[in-house]
Parts: sequence; structure tokens; C-alpha cells
Amino acid sequence: MDNAAGRMRVALAQLQVPIGDIGGNAHRIAEEMDWAEEIGADVLVLPELALTGYPPEDLLHLSGFVEHNLDALTDLAGHARDCVTVVGFVDPVPARADTDATPRTFANAVALLWQGQVRDRYHKVLLPNYGVFDERRYFAPGTRRGGTWRVRHAEVGVLVCEDVWRPELADAQAADGAQALFVANASPFHRGKVAEREHIVTDTAARCGVPVAYCNLVGGHDEVVFDGGSLVTDARGAVLARGAAFTQDRLALDLDLAHHAPASRRSTFVCRPAPRAVRPALEAPTARAPLADLEEVYTALVRSLADYCANHGHSTVVVGLSGGIDSGLVATLAADALGPDRVWGITLPGPASPPAATDDAAELAKRLGIRHDVVDVSAAHEPQVAALAELAGGDPSDDDVLARARGTFLLGVAARSDGVVLPTGNKTETALGYGTLGGDAAGGFAVLRDVPKTLVYALCDWRSALPVDVAHQRGWVAGPEVVPAAIRDKPPSAERAPDRPDREVPASYATVDAILERFLERAESPSEIAARGFDAAVVARIVDLVERNEASRRQMPPGVKVTSRAFGRDRRMPLGHDWRAVDDTARTRRFAPSDDDWLEG
Amino acid sequence: MDNAAGRMRVALAQLQVPIGDIGGNAHRIAEEMDWAEEIGADVLVLPELALTGYPPEDLLHLSGFVEHNLDALTDLAGHARDCVTVVGFVDPVPARADTDATPRTFANAVALLWQGQVRDRYHKVLLPNYGVFDERRYFAPGTRRGGTWRVRHAEVGVLVCEDVWRPELADAQAADGAQALFVANASPFHRGKVAEREHIVTDTAARCGVPVAYCNLVGGHDEVVFDGGSLVTDARGAVLARGAAFTQDRLALDLDLAHHAPASRRSTFVCRPAPRAVRPALEAPTARAPLADLEEVYTALVRSLADYCANHGHSTVVVGLSGGIDSGLVATLAADALGPDRVWGITLPGPASPPAATDDAAELAKRLGIRHDVVDVSAAHEPQVAALAELAGGDPSDDDVLARARGTFLLGVAARSDGVVLPTGNKTETALGYGTLGGDAAGGFAVLRDVPKTLVYALCDWRSALPVDVAHQRGWVAGPEVVPAAIRDKPPSAERAPDRPDREVPASYATVDAILERFLERAESPSEIAARGFDAAVVARIVDLVERNEASRRQMPPGVKVTSRAFGRDRRMPLGHDWRAVDDTARTRRFAPSDDDWLEG
Repeated sequence: MDNAAGRMRVALAQLQVPIGDIGGNAHRIAEEMDWAEEIGADVLVLPELALTGYPPEDLLHLSGFVEHNLDALTDLAGHARDCVTVVGFVDPVPARADTDATPRTFANAVALLWQGQVRDRYHKVLLPNYGVFDERRYFAPGTRRGGTWRVRHAEVGVLVCEDVWRPELADAQAADGAQALFVANASPFHRGKVAEREHIVTDTAARCGVPVAYCNLVGGHDEVVFDGGSLVTDARGAVLARGAAFTQDRLALDLDLAHHAPASRRSTFVCRPAPRAVRPALEAPTARAPLADLEEVYTALVRSLADYCANHGHSTVVVGLSGGIDSGLVATLAADALGPDRVWGITLPGPASPPAATDDAAELAKRLGIRHDVVDVSAAHEPQVAALAELAGGDPSDDDVLARARGTFLLGVAARSDGVVLPTGNKTETALGYGTLGGDAAGGFAVLRDVPKTLVYALCDWRSALPVDVAHQRGWVAGPEVVPAAIRDKPPSAERAPDRPDREVPASYATVDAILERFLERAESPSEIAARGFDAAVVARIVDLVERNEASRRQMPPGVKVTSRAFGRDRRMPLGHDWRAVDDTARTRRFAPSDDDWLEG
Repeated sequence: MDNAAGRMRVALAQLQVPIGDIGGNAHRIAEEMDWAEEIGADVLVLPELALTGYPPEDLLHLSGFVEHNLDALTDLAGHARDCVTVVGFVDPVPARADTDATPRTFANAVALLWQGQVRDRYHKVLLPNYGVFDERRYFAPGTRRGGTWRVRHAEVGVLVCEDVWRPELADAQAADGAQALFVANASPFHRGKVAEREHIVTDTAARCGVPVAYCNLVGGHDEVVFDGGSLVTDARGAVLARGAAFTQDRLALDLDLAHHAPASRRSTFVCRPAPRAVRPALEAPTARAPLADLEEVYTALVRSLADYCANHGHSTVVVGLSGGIDSGLVATLAADALGPDRVWGITLPGPASPPAATDDAAELAKRLGIRHDVVDVSAAHEPQVAALAELAGGDPSDDDVLARARGTFLLGVAARSDGVVLPTGNKTETALGYGTLGGDAAGGFAVLRDVPKTLVYALCDWRSALPVDVAHQRGWVAGPEVVPAAIRDKPPSAERAPDRPDREVPASYATVDAILERFLERAESPSEIAARGFDAAVVARIVDLVERNEASRRQMPPGVKVTSRAFGRDRRMPLGHDWRAVDDTARTRRFAPSDDDWLEG
């Protein structure tokens, strides 16, 4: 079937690409180009910055990096045949007078490749510079508004990620005659984002009256995970195909193009129609449903954990199994992500640890099929406590020493087994400052760092209820009820070691998490939060704890963003600031900032 | 003496302001306004964002923060009398179509206050978004080019910090008739910056033919320190007055204004000439010399250390004294910054530590007048090593366990004495990855993190040679040769514990630091560096070590920037990236990033 006017065969390669592996990424992209060529696609869309990986950050400033990316693009262009490839790369631009003293000399770009050459390039116009994004640090914004590209019989539009999150750019390309829109993306995940993104894409299609093919990146990179979920819609905004969640995928379908009488036409020629051999029939596209909420979050955590280990070259993960629910969830995620033989659970009871906790940990390990050892670290812990008391006094129930003895032991095991420790702190603890640096917070990847306690419970319940055949199909641990009820149903108070009264949570986790969500994610003030019916004193206590723990959070291992506002890159606070939200006044300083006054009190 | 046409009395308040202490900063500013009023100043210039502190970062997004800053500005305006006050604050602006999907609704602004009211405001145009700066994350750029403000008999210009680092904005205001330029700044320090900044300011003055009054911020805020060094120049660019380095200061002088026939005039009225009582004579301004290089760096470190403790409320600092030069310098800096009675040196010998090292540490402590204790942590260390060997095998000479036993002990002492541990790692070690998280790298503020080893030696030598009276005058420890020659002259090999062969430095420190400076600060490639005469294998080894240690560096305590490119906010690298500069190829991945391939090897 020849390429009938009004139809276009579109392929999307929802790829995963390591950051900085330019040569390897070029190979990965070339394979996708071969696939697209084999199926007779007219256009292949790849993710944003597929060649360099995303985000490359200050790698862009290293000598040779951008040049290497350009050489690889030339190679890819040489590989291009009849299918037009739309691929993300970094494009140098002339320095321009700008509102920065240091003009940016790179653009976040896509290239259009056809028959051995780069036919044109597009520079991303809207550069996100909020939350986890810093694109204005690196890139000059594109200046192109509107215009289309001539591909075969049709005019098409091309945009990158953020460009579609405001209507103007898509509208301008549609007004100039675009009959389809191709969007290259590196859109990170958080809970609720998938629906938000779909709304943007379908709205764009319906508003412009054009089909949209939106190709997203896959993969975890420390603080962010890209969830794939690529989308193809028709010209009314109905979803025709949806890429898999959190895994590589290929989508291919024949799109009915829009029929436009454009108001103006500014078209860049890319390629003429090519006589075509008969090309294979495509399977009917599947608009598989997106994942449901808990499954989506769980899968995001599994993906980021697996990719953390791959990116950092760790063969083993070590988890301190306390018998509690947080370490239970971490161990389960690890076993699902890597396989049980790569997970090592170690229980390190302290002097006041209830024996039942160790039994619970052992049972969990058995159900997951992971190695489990129990080691008593009091021989390290007690001499330290005694020496500290002798030298510095202090409260022997201050258990940071035990926490650090455990942390040291786990880190030692990991170092000796080509592994990495996974700390088990959740978002609630991290927010309140309950986590000892070098102790329970020690490790490489804090997979639950952005998971509130109430969500930990929900995820454990969901995972434990997952049917065995479904788990098996996903390559996860295929046991019924992987996290024992004894762990899931344990009341929170039983978790806290009797020797940690300083880590009392000021209210129920449901209350604390609701307050934290409003304070951290919705940026509500303490009085606004209290006005919703929360106890003002509890709100004040929680906000105070959050504010005074920025410095310790700064040193904690990174964890993946799953909420709309995570700690780390997503939320940048001065470490020793004086702002106290509760009463809009600064804390009482004990020492004046200048070198000449010392205030009493 | 009345305000003769052609002269203006200008006051600069080189202030230190805690971030977020809006109410307190308003009081500090009001005091400066009172001083300026008393001396009959026509204009008072304050630093950039003096009301909120700099940088406020995501505090700006918290409910109430910007409102509180506006209320405080209104209070300050109410306090303004005859002197025109130029003060930095955050000004809301209408959302504008921008090259961000999320329009910024704040400007980095200065207000002009006179006789009870805000008379006008100026919005910073050039927003730095590189290195340590993220101003495009927060602010919309100002749009005003040119124009002046009418103050008494004269037209004046107003700019903020980055605005003068390109010529266009000053030129435009001068072209519109500005007879003096007032610049509010929060310009952070690094080695060489002071000269660079002075060149910019004097060049601006000479080029525009106007006197310039440039008021800079003072104070340390974790990763950056603002060095003051405010400047006033005449219309030819000669420096008339220079503010103190790293400490609060006040400058006041009568400036001869430029005489302009402006090409155009766009003037905003601020205030009419006011009949003036006789005002006090001013002391002749002093253009004190800037600090010499080593003194400047040393003072920067002292300032940031003192301010870290003030900002975080620590009364004591704990330093692990190994008898080596790094801890020797840290202890000296601490004693100079805080006074000997707030510094606690602790030596924690290990099984292979030479006894002479403890003696050296004791001698240093004695000369500094600080408390010194020696504690044997082998009782904690040895059981851990044995338990690890039993469970995980491994090399007993891998001394991370001892490092962490020490770290745990020091952190415990600090927690029990309202203190903070100062880790002693220098830039060379940090670059090469020689520092154990939770061990020797543990603590709150890594004051030497951006100080290369060769500079550590130079600073120690400089400090030890400082005359007693000079030290006394600065409030520092007034002893001759505070760091004993035995420590300063110790050959590097003697420092390394015999049990740390993994921390061999690949060449002399002079060579390693030269290579690192080129790789990290000048962004030269390994081949470019080798072409300058360095051994290619040594370069490759060093670059490889830097590249593979991003993840551990991410978790290290912050330290102050003193070079042109520091780790931390100044240099943002993906943690598990694959870029290897040495051969422009990615490392061999052991695990494929996707969840379905496992590669051997």
C-alpha cells in the first residue's frame, strides 16, 4: 500500500538511554531506525536528548561532550534511509544577547534525519527551570514560532516536551498547516503526572485538530524516573496507542492526518514522497490502560531501584531488616527489581530490640527468597557508648551510636560484596528529621525517600495482595502475600524501639502525612493548614521539625521523586535559614552573624 | 554645607544579613538608615536582597514569605526620611509570557525609599543562572533599559549585581543622563574574584564617565561566602574607598558627580533637594588595599566557618586531630573563627597510627589553646572488623570501619556538647574520592572541601608566619607559629596511615592539583591537559577517579566555594553517568539499563 495522501505511518521508540553513553545511545537509536525502516514507517520519533541521555547537566560543559554528540548525530544521519528520524541531541547555537550575563551556546534540539543527512533541526522553546529542571542553566531557548516540515505528502509539526505544556507553540504550528504533531519528551514521573500529561496531549490534539505522537523516555536516574507511557492520539484527541509504563516499548501505527487549509504556510522541506514497496501490515494499536495508582508508584520504585544498580554497577543490595514495614517494603522492591539472589537482608538487633522483630524479618526473607543473616553489633556499640559517656557525658539512651554501628556494618558488608546499602527511611521520617546520618540513613539509594508512611502501608498491602500469576508475569517474586501480615499490621508504636522516644510522631501517620502534603507539596502556610481542621500545635510541631532539618537532609542519599514535591533537587532550601513559617518570625539567634557580637541566650 | 549641585553624599552599608530573618533584617537596615540620616547622606546603598537575605531559594515559594518581605519594606519606607535608601527586596510582578511554561511572578528588585514612601523600584535585568546561581528559577527578568532617577539636583542610575557584568545596562543609564551609578550586590567570593570585580566596576566608571558606588553583601551561607569589599570610584574609575573584606563596614563620602549632556532623558522623580542643616564633615575615605591572596582565602574560610556555626546554632566544633596538616589547618581556622574555648580537638589513634602523630596533634592543640583528648576506638573497631570478616570476608586492611568508628565517636561527642564536627577533607582528596562517608568525611561543614592540598600547605605556612601582633589585631590566636613545623613540614607519605594504600596519590600534590585545576576549573579535556606536559597515564587516572566518585561526593557535608569551580551547587553532575572523558567512550556497563538484559563481564 502506497503512502496515501492523508495517512502516515508513525513509529515511536520509547527508549531507555544511559546519560553520557553517547556512542552506545547512537547504537540503540540506530537499531530503532532499522526497525522503523523494516516496518516501512514514514517517521520515527525518539525521546528528548536521546543521544546524550537526560539530564546531562554539567557534562555539557566538559570538553568534547557536545562535539562527541555532534559526531554521533552525523553517524546517525548517515544511517538514515527512507524513514524520517526525529531524534533529540544538543545543538550549538551562536551566543545571543540574553537576560543572562553568560549567553548560552547550546540548544535542546531535535534533528530530522533522512537519506543520509540532517535535513533540519528544531530548538526547544519553553525551557523548564523549576522543580527538578534546570534547563536555563544550559540552553538558549529556541526562537521559532510556528512553521512546519514537509514530510512526504504532508506538513508536520515538531515540538519538545515542555513546548506542549502551553498552547501557543502547538497552535502556531497547526495554524501554519501542520497535519500531525510529533513531540520528543523526557517527562519525569510523579503520582498523578500520567493523567496530567495525557490531558495535555489529548487537549492539544483536540484543540489543534491534529493527531499527536508523543514519545517519552524510560528509566531511572537517581532522583527522577521517566515512565515512558508514550501516547498517540487521533485528531480528536482519542488515544490510539499507549506505550508501556516504565519499560522500553515500540509503537507503530498508521495515522489519519488532519486536513488543513492553513492560514499561512512556512514549510521546511525534509523529504519527498518515496516510491514504496509493499510494507508489512501493522498490528492494531493497543490503547492499553495506564497503570492504576498504587501499581504505578510501585513500578516506579522498582524501575528506579533496578536502574540505580545498573547505572552504578552494583551487583548486590544490602538492606537492614528491622522487622518493620519500611525495610519490609524496601526488601520486597529489591527482590522484585533485581531478583532474590541479589538481595541480602541483615538484621542487627540492639539491646532493646524485641525478639519478635527478628522473627518477622526472617519470615519476610523466607517469603522473598533472599539471604538473611542476624548479627549482633553490641560489641561495637557498647564500648563506643561507654567511651562517649566518659568523655562527653550525655544520655546513654541517645541511640545514634547504635544506629551508626548498624550503618557501618551494613556499609562494610556492601563494600565487601560489590553492593550498595539501601536505607529504608520514608518521606515522613525524612521530613521530620528522624534518620541518623551514617546510621539508618546510610547507603546509596533511599528508594522510599519520597514515599510517605501512609503510602508505604498502602503499597505493602497492594503488593501482598497481588495475585501470584500477575507477579510472575512481571518477573517479580511470585509468592502469595510476600510481606507477612505480622509486619503489615504491626501498630506503628511497636516499630519504634523503646530506646527512641525522641522519634515520637506527633500524631497519627494519617494526620502527619496530610499535614506534610499540604506544607511540602501545596506550599500552604501553617495557619492555612490549621484552618482546615488540624490541631494548630501539631501543625506547628511538624513544620518546626521540617524547617530545622534541612542540613541533615542535604547529606542523605538520593531517592526517586514520586510525589509532586520531593526533597533534593525538587526543593532547594538554604541550610541554616532563619525563616519560621509558624509565627512568621525568625528564630531567636544565639550568635549574631557578625564576628563581633555574641548575644546571650 | 548645602548639597552643591555636582556633589552627592553617598553612604554604603556593607551588611551581613541572615537568610529568612526578614524582621531582623528590617531592623538592621533601619539602623543603617539612621546612621545615613545622621551623617546627612543623600543616598544610602544596601546590598542586593538585603531584606530577605541571599540566596533565599525556595523560601520564596513558601506561603507568606514574599508578603512578609513586602510588609517589612513598607515599614522601612515609613522609616525613611531625607536620605534616599536603595535596598534590595523581592517584588511581585505580573505573570508574563516567557520562555518558561511557568511564568515567574517575582523580581529581584531594589526599592528607592524617601520620606515615608517607596518612590520607585528597579528590577534586576541580568539574572545569573550558572555556577552557584539559579536566579531564573525564581525571578522574571526586569525589562527596563536605561532611564534615570532624579535625586535632589542630580540624575542617578541604579543596577543590581549581574547587571554590571555586561556593559549595556550601565551604558544605557549613562546615555540617559545618569551622573552616578549605585549598584546593590550579593557577589560571592572566590580566589581572584575581587580583582575581577574591581576591574568590572572601575571599567564601568571609566567607560560611562560616572562615579560608581558598589555595595556588596558580607557573610557565609554554607557553600558560598560573600566578601564585602564594597567599592566607590570616581568618574575616571579611580577607587576612592574600599569596604573591609569579610566583615561589616560603612563607607561614606562626598562624590563629585559627572556632568552630562544626556542624549535622551527618561527620569523618574524620587526627591527634590531638601534644605539641609549643616552636616558633619566626613573622614577622608580610605581606599585600603584589598587583601593579598593567601590572607584573603584564609579570611574567607574563617568567615564561613564562624557563620556556619552562627547560622546553625552550634556552640562548639569538634575536630579529629590526626597530627596531619589538614586537621591542623581546620583546628587553627576554628580557633581563629570562634576562639579556642569553642574548639575541641580529639585524636583517635588506630592500630597502625604512629605515636608521633598524637604528639604532633597535642603540640598543635597546646599552641592553639584548645582542649585535646586522645581516645582509643579500637574497642569499637576491632569487633566490627571481625564480624564483617566472618560474614562477608573481605580485606581487614580496608579501613573504612576504623574511619567510621572515628566518625561515629566524633559525631557522638558533638551531639552531646551542642556542637558540630568539622571534617578535614581537602579538595584534592574530595576530587579523587578519598574520604569515607560517615568516617573522616562525617560532620556538618567541610571547610576545606574546596581547598586543594597545595593551598592547604600554603595557608598553613602563611598563618604560621603571621606576626603575633597582626593575629592579635584580628582577634585570632596570637601565638607565634601556631601550626608546628613538625606538622607543616611532614612529607605527605608520612601522613598516610600505613593501612591506607588505596589512598595513594598518583603523583606529587603539585602535579595532581595542577591537573585537577585544569580538569575541574578550566574544563580542559584529558588530552588537552596531557598536551601541556603532564603524564597521560597520570591524567587518565586522576580523571577516572573524579568521574567515578560523584555519588559519594553528593552525600558529603557542604563546604565553602573558594575556587572558580567547587563541588556541590557549583558543579552539577549526574551521579551514575557513563561519560568517560579519557577516551571519549562510555565505560563498559555491567548491567544493561533495561530490565531484560544482563550482560556478562
